[in-house]
Amino acid sequence: MCSENQKSVSTARLGFASVDLARAKRCGFPEVVYAEGKTAEAVMAIFEKQIAHGITPYATRLRPEQMAPLKERFPEGILNRTARTFRFFPREPQPPKGKVAVVTAGTSDLPVAEEAVETLLWMGVEVVAIHDVGVAGPHRLQERLADFEGCAAAVVIAGMEGALPSVVGGYVDFPVIAVPTSVGYGANFGGLSALLGMLNSCASNVAVVNIDAGFKGGYLAGMIASK
Amino acid sequence: MCSENQKSVSTARLGFASVDLARAKRCGFPEVVYAEGKTAEAVMAIFEKQIAHGITPYATRLRPEQMAPLKERFPEGILNRTARTFRFFPREPQPPKGKVAVVTAGTSDLPVAEEAVETLLWMGVEVVAIHDVGVAGPHRLQERLADFEGCAAAVVIAGMEGALPSVVGGYVDFPVIAVPTSVGYGANFGGLSALLGMLNSCASNVAVVNIDAGFKGGYLAGMIASK
Amino acid sequence: MCSENQKSVSTARLGFASVDLARAKRCGFPEVVYAEGKTAEAVMAIFEKQIAHGITPYATRLRPEQMAPLKERFPEGILNRTARTFRFFPREPQPPKGKVAVVTAGTSDLPVAEEAVETLLWMGVEVVAIHDVGVAGPHRLQERLADFEGCAAAVVIAGMEGALPSVVGGYVDFPVIAVPTSVGYGANFGGLSALLGMLNSCASNVAVVNIDAGFKGGYLAGMIASK
Amino acid sequence: MCSENQKSVSTARLGFASVDLARAKRCGFPEVVYAEGKTAEAVMAIFEKQIAHGITPYATRLRPEQMAPLKERFPEGILNRTARTFRFFPREPQPPKGKVAVVTAGTSDLPVAEEAVETLLWMGVEVVAIHDVGVAGPHRLQERLADFEGCAAAVVIAGMEGALPSVVGGYVDFPVIAVPTSVGYGANFGGLSALLGMLNSCASNVAVVNIDAGFKGGYLAGMIASK
Amino acid sequence: MCSENQKSVSTARLGFASVDLARAKRCGFPEVVYAEGKTAEAVMAIFEKQIAHGITPYATRLRPEQMAPLKERFPEGILNRTARTFRFFPREPQPPKGKVAVVTAGTSDLPVAEEAVETLLWMGVEVVAIHDVGVAGPHRLQERLADFEGCAAAVVIAGMEGALPSVVGGYVDFPVIAVPTSVGYGANFGGLSALLGMLNSCASNVAVVNIDAGFKGGYLAGMIASK
Amino acid sequence: MCSENQKSVSTARLGFASVDLARAKRCGFPEVVYAEGKTAEAVMAIFEKQIAHGITPYATRLRPEQMAPLKERFPEGILNRTARTFRFFPREPQPPKGKVAVVTAGTSDLPVAEEAVETLLWMGVEVVAIHDVGVAGPHRLQERLADFEGCAAAVVIAGMEGALPSVVGGYVDFPVIAVPTSVGYGANFGGLSALLGMLNSCASNVAVVNIDAGFKGGYLAGMIASK
Amino acid sequence: MCSENQKSVSTARLGFASVDLARAKRCGFPEVVYAEGKTAEAVMAIFEKQIAHGITPYATRLRPEQMAPLKERFPEGILNRTARTFRFFPREPQPPKGKVAVVTAGTSDLPVAEEAVETLLWMGVEVVAIHDVGVAGPHRLQERLADFEGCAAAVVIAGMEGALPSVVGGYVDFPVIAVPTSVGYGANFGGLSALLGMLNSCASNVAVVNIDAGFKGGYLAGMIASK
Amino acid sequence: MCSENQKSVSTARLGFASVDLARAKRCGFPEVVYAEGKTAEAVMAIFEKQIAHGITPYATRLRPEQMAPLKERFPEGILNRTARTFRFFPREPQPPKGKVAVVTAGTSDLPVAEEAVETLLWMGVEVVAIHDVGVAGPHRLQERLADFEGCAAAVVIAGMEGALPSVVGGYVDFPVIAVPTSVGYGANFGGLSALLGMLNSCASNVAVVNIDAGFKGGYLAGMIASK
Repeated sequence: MCSENQKSVSTARLGFASVDLARAKRCGFPEVVYAEGKTAEAVMAIFEKQIAHGITPYATRLRPEQMAPLKERFPEGILNRTARTFRFFPREPQPPKGKVAVVTAGTSDLPVAEEAVETLLWMGVEVVAIHDVGVAGPHRLQERLADFEGCAAAVVIAGMEGALPSVVGGYVDFPVIAVPTSVGYGANFGGLSALLGMLNSCASNVAVVNIDAGFKGGYLAGMIASK
Repeated sequence: MCSENQKSVSTARLGFASVDLARAKRCGFPEVVYAEGKTAEAVMAIFEKQIAHGITPYATRLRPEQMAPLKERFPEGILNRTARTFRFFPREPQPPKGKVAVVTAGTSDLPVAEEAVETLLWMGVEVVAIHDVGVAGPHRLQERLADFEGCAAAVVIAGMEGALPSVVGGYVDFPVIAVPTSVGYGANFGGLSALLGMLNSCASNVAVVNIDAGFKGGYLAGMIASK
Repeated sequence: MCSENQKSVSTARLGFASVDLARAKRCGFPEVVYAEGKTAEAVMAIFEKQIAHGITPYATRLRPEQMAPLKERFPEGILNRTARTFRFFPREPQPPKGKVAVVTAGTSDLPVAEEAVETLLWMGVEVVAIHDVGVAGPHRLQERLADFEGCAAAVVIAGMEGALPSVVGGYVDFPVIAVPTSVGYGANFGGLSALLGMLNSCASNVAVVNIDAGFKGGYLAGMIASK
Repeated sequence: MCSENQKSVSTARLGFASVDLARAKRCGFPEVVYAEGKTAEAVMAIFEKQIAHGITPYATRLRPEQMAPLKERFPEGILNRTARTFRFFPREPQPPKGKVAVVTAGTSDLPVAEEAVETLLWMGVEVVAIHDVGVAGPHRLQERLADFEGCAAAVVIAGMEGALPSVVGGYVDFPVIAVPTSVGYGANFGGLSALLGMLNSCASNVAVVNIDAGFKGGYLAGMIASK
Repeated sequence: MCSENQKSVSTARLGFASVDLARAKRCGFPEVVYAEGKTAEAVMAIFEKQIAHGITPYATRLRPEQMAPLKERFPEGILNRTARTFRFFPREPQPPKGKVAVVTAGTSDLPVAEEAVETLLWMGVEVVAIHDVGVAGPHRLQERLADFEGCAAAVVIAGMEGALPSVVGGYVDFPVIAVPTSVGYGANFGGLSALLGMLNSCASNVAVVNIDAGFKGGYLAGMIASK
Repeated sequence: MCSENQKSVSTARLGFASVDLARAKRCGFPEVVYAEGKTAEAVMAIFEKQIAHGITPYATRLRPEQMAPLKERFPEGILNRTARTFRFFPREPQPPKGKVAVVTAGTSDLPVAEEAVETLLWMGVEVVAIHDVGVAGPHRLQERLADFEGCAAAVVIAGMEGALPSVVGGYVDFPVIAVPTSVGYGANFGGLSALLGMLNSCASNVAVVNIDAGFKGGYLAGMIASK
Repeated sequence: MCSENQKSVSTARLGFASVDLARAKRCGFPEVVYAEGKTAEAVMAIFEKQIAHGITPYATRLRPEQMAPLKERFPEGILNRTARTFRFFPREPQPPKGKVAVVTAGTSDLPVAEEAVETLLWMGVEVVAIHDVGVAGPHRLQERLADFEGCAAAVVIAGMEGALPSVVGGYVDFPVIAVPTSVGYGANFGGLSALLGMLNSCASNVAVVNIDAGFKGGYLAGMIASK
Repeated sequence: MCSENQKSVSTARLGFASVDLARAKRCGFPEVVYAEGKTAEAVMAIFEKQIAHGITPYATRLRPEQMAPLKERFPEGILNRTARTFRFFPREPQPPKGKVAVVTAGTSDLPVAEEAVETLLWMGVEVVAIHDVGVAGPHRLQERLADFEGCAAAVVIAGMEGALPSVVGGYVDFPVIAVPTSVGYGANFGGLSALLGMLNSCASNVAVVNIDAGFKGGYLAGMIASK
């Protein structure tokens, strides 16, 4: 159990941030750096502190101007420009931690899907990607059903009417983490239509996270798969 | 064309209502009585005036206390308690006017579907009913695809996430009239979730009417089919 | 019927997209390219693949920087800068496919109307344009009523209070596809006022599509007219 | 001018209410009793106090149980059960104060219209009632245009899409006070659709009051007419 | 009465616009040019056509790039950069047409107020400006009460909580046209807070127009004053 | 300081509830019983436990059927049927704890005001009640300004446009706790209009609590006054 | 994997319902009967059909009038009046399937919690109940942290501000399924406040289901635990 | 008491603004300059007028281009670029005025917190800053509880789910002024999620101000502390 209320001796105060060095021990996974609103220098300083303590760093929501300095300073890290993430590999090989399907309704949902994929890879979870299988072309999902074999969870990402998680939920016997996206226009009201659709899913095994929250969708599915 | 701006000599003023006796000639179908807010006596008086002029009457949104008097006075009429409608048969046999599929996601959508069906039958349109084929059990719709053969339009009725019209739209080559229902609870906000889902449908052939508007869904599909 | 669940041998996988080469045979009309979020190169590659298979291409929601390369590469195509569309002519003359009226409330609704018109022309449907006949100048619509003669459907486009579809619906005996626009300010809330107005239309023959959805409005009306 | 900031010697404190006995002198019209949340006894006590000071009383939003006692105690007063109002006649004949048109879209808007009418009659303003002329039957309003002759303002009452005020506004050269009603269902969201439609009216001479606010609509029009 | 349904011989079709040359005769005031979405050339062409027919032109919602060409071409016109309006003087002196108060809550409401003032001046109505008298400094309005003397109506403009029209309404015996503005931040939701506040005003003589609708507020008040 | 994280030895577990017997010592005031959803027996059992420990009980949101048993069992307690509260007196006289003004816009706001008053009296705070001083009759508040003398805070309660807290805030030099009420109809949307108005108050000294939250409004003001 | 697209030979058509007899084999758990909108007779007929096929029945959302007949007909079943559920025991002992914590913020959330608990018990999952630990009394949750030991997931149920899932999420290393409830008043808008709070949780391991969806919360947690 | 209704002789009219020179005497604190929508020159002119009358100036919501001129002209003033404020020191030392805690959930809330801090410092109130103690890491707040000692109020600032004020409220015995921020994305809807969460707080001592309203939060807390 992740018992944060004990006296923590492993907090590194950097002035601009408090780096939690013991979270991986308590919660299973290290602290993730949310780069929005931080300078590239700040992200790099946190990374160095984490690496010094044997932690495998991971950052999300990078802005374009943060990307080049990071890649230059840490050439061994993986920069994903679409996902806006930067992750490291663990120093030593890790045993596999289960498998998760990442499913999208259309190509516009790709940035959110990539953030989920990067999160799962950083967690050491195997990913099966099933793209562009929105409900208006029903045969596309049916052709891919075998790919769900062996998965412990699915992250299903869709904008507009957000119907795909319900359909996937009807085909599988594991939890579906639904991620609504802001893809669409007019009466989608910034993702509200997909969000409400997913919350009202008639499938029993569909839970929902925030609009465009690819990280959270991947993290929850990875947590389920890695148990 | 339905040219209502000409000097109408066929309006019957009953005090409580203006009965438009010439609408069938102008618009293809006679005026429909919206019973909400009228007494049973008022509905009967309108019916009698219409029958006297050779019009086939039809009323929607009947309240329970209006039903018995209507059935007693007009035993030849068809009372549908679920649809809350009362309709008459034309005096002379009519040529068939095309076929429409009426599709529901779940059994709770039945009252809205029945209102659509009654409207279509009154218009003289053939109906194919495909019930309880919501997206969480995808095989159910696939087993019924052959039933769409020969249809000119579909009325697709769903609450909760309102995903069914998108899926049906992906299988057919005719217009889908989507009717969102208020079925559901919590974040469905009285049908808003289904309404927004249908408006944001990724299928090109889906148009939407008001929440629970079974009459309008049936009327539009019937208009398309009877051309 | 558009039976997409059969084993499709006509999908062209381009890496960045899956081009559905058989849709015209199944659904009556070929796949339309939604250019939003694609490069000009991607759109051109899809066009070439379609042309090679005898398909008449059509793209919507082009961004300004995509337009010049397309026109240069395909000088025979029709670029509509207002509609943000690019369409081709069929190689062989087609029999006419019915007539649709495209009606606007004001001049600001023109871009949405143009998208509907281009869609109808690509479908081979005849278009009657009736512009600037909003409800605050009621005589303007009345002067144009004769133009509805012979139409199978109308696309009625309006922002602000969105009242025009109701008024048109009262004059005609065919379906009205209402397209709310985001034209207006303040309490129009990005098109919500027109959308709600159209969904609550007191006319029986009015169905609604998404805000600013000129393509969908045109496609539905064209589908009705081309039967 | 209605200068309420001067030291008022004409307030009658009844314990449960402060009766403003001088308002007619200051503001042109006496205080109106809003009966919602008052007992029949309280309303009667206020009436008596007003009558004793030469004021012509008027009450709105009466509940059914308040009506019989009022009518029994003041047989000379006018009880309107549809409008839920009770008004008195001035003791001495008043000179006429102009004319206002009260216009409704449908018969369900009648209770709100009656409240406006009673308010205007109590103010001594002549009323022209034009009922059931909603936009889906455009010829109905056109047949009544002559009835607007001589009016100083119109109160236009409509639910659902709330389009009627825009249409009336296009025909007249005086202010239109638009009253949205909660008539409708589904996506009318308790009158929101009509309210937004009226606020976004493309006619320049349309102002709006609260949903179902027949009293306020009548009061404003009466104020304009009685100048 | 403004009877637009008669055969109009005074419409000037310019291709890009239909100029209504007879509106002043029918409705009391000429057509106003809404410049949003028109080129400077289009606005000038309409002005010239109007002037040629003896009409006094007026345009609202000018964009900055339209202003200089207009002022250069028509040096005799009044350009108001804050109001974003351009108006002409009538060729011959007009009799005065009543007086209207234009009241603002704060200095940020000034652009909306200026649009109302310009509209009133173009209509030939006298204006009394009462600025910066928001409810949080109650003495400021009280010091100006004498300025309402002789007014036939008030345009009261406020953002944030939109309380000022209620307070003004309590002091005067004429109609108050309330104009909510989008001034504010956070939970004002683009003017929604002021709009709802004004619609729910406890004062009987307050009617409301759209958010930031200075023209409509001025036009309605001017219509009342010029009777 | 109210340090609830220390090991509490004073929690009385009654099965149906955990009674916090030490809160008065820690937080200044004892736990208040929220009666909604509890039986009269449960409320009485909690009261007895509190009294046994020297605590002065207080309950809010009583339902009518809970009131008689409470009054019968504890005749020394104060039952306020309008406020729906039941409170006890401290066993020993308390020193006075400051003064708070409770202000209402209209008589319909009285139940919420009474809940605030009862809360303040239970806290031992002196109350000055200023009723029915809504902004549409501005002189009413001005006549009462002297009553604010000596107050440490005001609870200002209003429905509809919720403007009164702004006006009071402009007259006083202490915090105003604004309580929006659900009083009104139509576009007040259950108190939303008053809530948004108060949140957007142009007065610097206005903070807001939930709709109809008389208890919370009184509690906060009492906390300020009793320091 | 739950492959519903194969030809199903195990659907029992009862006229009023299609009973899916093979779902337990495909999806891990049998079909659950949603009793809302069914008669007691219909529920009993489905139960008998399920029992005949060796299925362990479970029904949710029972109305009071359905409860007595069910208990009388199936005395061996467990009726939970608070949860509004009826469940059976499997005929043969089942191996344990993991442990889930069900956590509530307040006593008013109990009915939703009970529905989650009954669902988990029917799934054969062990339940740890942690009640009345809302965030305003932070020590209450801290005293119960040891009870999370050995859990595979938590269902956290809260109304009002819906903050509890975030706090629980910060203490544990497994998924938290957050269930917002409609408990509260005023600005909770039927559970919207709790729903939005949970969707915006700053904890990475929180997923959300519909308002008051105790069944879905329990089902998802049970699915995670029983893997 | 702040009696603004007396004849004010201390208003300095600058043309563009009315400077209230006597507010500090009446309301305890001088008028604050809201710089949004003013030029740097206007702000400087007001400052000079205030300084000439012995007032200590303070401005909020400065735009970047206003900052340099202000700092150059008044080098003795304190410019806070994060808070967007400019304040002066009183000419003579002031006695201390109590202590307020300013608490943030995350580092993104810092600009709003800084505005609150600057406001408190200008008021002469001591500030204790407690940053980055959001609810997902519960131990962080617990470690800082001793810092609340001696405070008279807390300003608690949070975005996303806005849960922190409830948790702080459970630990302290003084008022909590909750400031929701627009920090977050997706379903936070510009701060709505935090706003609704705070309004529905289950803690009795939490009042709320507008989204991002750091000034108002600080002002209210400072008013409480300085009594």
